[in-house]
Amino acid sequence: MVLHMEIIERIEAMQHWSEAQRRDRCRIVLVPTMGFLHEAHLRLVRDGKQRGDRIVVSIFVNPAQFSPNEDFTVYPRDFDRDRRLLEKENVNVLFHPSTAEIYPEGYETYVGVDKLSLFLCGGHRPGHFRGVATVVSKLFNIVRPHVAIFGEKDYQQLRVIRRLVQDLNFDIEVVGHPIVRDADGLAMSSRNAYLSPEERRAALCLSRSLRRAACMAQRGVIKARIITEAVRAEIEAEPLATVEYVTLCDAVTLEGIDEVYAGALLALAVRIGKTRLIDNTILKS
Amino acid sequence: MVLHMEIIERIEAMQHWSEAQRRDRCRIVLVPTMGFLHEAHLRLVRDGKQRGDRIVVSIFVNPAQFSPNEDFTVYPRDFDRDRRLLEKENVNVLFHPSTAEIYPEGYETYVGVDKLSLFLCGGHRPGHFRGVATVVSKLFNIVRPHVAIFGEKDYQQLRVIRRLVQDLNFDIEVVGHPIVRDADGLAMSSRNAYLSPEERRAALCLSRSLRRAACMAQRGVIKARIITEAVRAEIEAEPLATVEYVTLCDAVTLEGIDEVYAGALLALAVRIGKTRLIDNTILKS
Repeated sequence: MVLHMEIIERIEAMQHWSEAQRRDRCRIVLVPTMGFLHEAHLRLVRDGKQRGDRIVVSIFVNPAQFSPNEDFTVYPRDFDRDRRLLEKENVNVLFHPSTAEIYPEGYETYVGVDKLSLFLCGGHRPGHFRGVATVVSKLFNIVRPHVAIFGEKDYQQLRVIRRLVQDLNFDIEVVGHPIVRDADGLAMSSRNAYLSPEERRAALCLSRSLRRAACMAQRGVIKARIITEAVRAEIEAEPLATVEYVTLCDAVTLEGIDEVYAGALLALAVRIGKTRLIDNTILKS
Repeated sequence: MVLHMEIIERIEAMQHWSEAQRRDRCRIVLVPTMGFLHEAHLRLVRDGKQRGDRIVVSIFVNPAQFSPNEDFTVYPRDFDRDRRLLEKENVNVLFHPSTAEIYPEGYETYVGVDKLSLFLCGGHRPGHFRGVATVVSKLFNIVRPHVAIFGEKDYQQLRVIRRLVQDLNFDIEVVGHPIVRDADGLAMSSRNAYLSPEERRAALCLSRSLRRAACMAQRGVIKARIITEAVRAEIEAEPLATVEYVTLCDAVTLEGIDEVYAGALLALAVRIGKTRLIDNTILKS
């Protein structure tokens, strides 16, 4: 059965909808996205449907999390296709506000998770996590979900959001969903749409290098530097790839580590041509 | 009839109480305080009782809004007296968390209202409004009120909170309550407890200078500088007083103005001995 999916563009209407659902004791699940949906998003939606009575998907390309030199204006968008995909998943509400609705003239309030924002992508994308924490705080106040689901490909983002929820006392359960990969190993991302066929093949060096690191850790290699250098070498063997960072760190604090342990995070950011891609894995002992 | 006042110390218990009240469609009013209650606080409470079905008063001396050189450790506290005063007002819940409950080890998330925090007290108390915006965001998520009431003596704080609520989409009505003054004109403040009898008399220069400014504006004086200089002169005639700032500004943006208009804000901060006091008034034409 295909239900009617409501499309809501205004904050007040969204808040009213959620308030009514909560009064009826319905459990609301939110999947925040920037649109241009792919299979990984739909997995989050399906996961979400198991966790509550009503599912809201937001589509908002958040300017506050892009630096001036980044790809905000060219970030891929296809609202009609997204809408059809979400209708097929029986989503209850597609929340799709305009930029002016979220950041009206004179907007000046920002949420920052100070320490977790310093590491990994934070060093290369100044202001990025402040933009993420701000828009997620707003979405939480607008949609008022009981549960919110985020993909683990954006591992640092998930950590920042968990910290934000804990620190600001949002009464929300944050769920991380495992990375969804294409059959050949490439982590799904809307930015994969930027890749030429040749770059698409080159981009496999990310997941390949992570698998190599996982093998090394399982073989008993302890020194973080030995593993990260092997990962770098694997990526740098690919002419189209440029490493931004390869870091082994604690999976909770994101602080760098010198020796590997079970549960440590290996995270990397790599440019394939002009496209910046990220990937990560949790190492086993 | 004296109702039983519940004292809640834990965040989770407070959230559960509020969630239950909201399900029963009760309208919750929050009066956030730092305790050491005086008549002005009680007026806020009585005002609040008219605006909803349940009233919550929080008492929390917020370390995040004090600079290291300020009076956090000596800020006056008298919980037993506060509790008795609130019981008499038939408050439903006194929320009284510990510092560790609000800022547990590893806390690192802060909310900032960038531009409004730069003016007036912001220039003299670095980080103060970030601390205010952070704790108020937390209290809003913990108590989940429909209405929150703040005094207008802390005018800039009220502006910051209104902006915060608008920008982060808190579904909360913010109410400002007019300054409550002693019979001789001194604006009520917990910090008045610091004043010796001699300082208490000296402190009257604040409200006296504001009345002088109001007269000048009503007589048709236009130039902001002429008014602020007369205010400074009035205060500086008092040997125990040291002006921190005297500013005429727009009452909404808090940006300084050169010419007075109806509705402009005159705000000042003055030290009487070691005690920092603030006061303000809205000028009529």
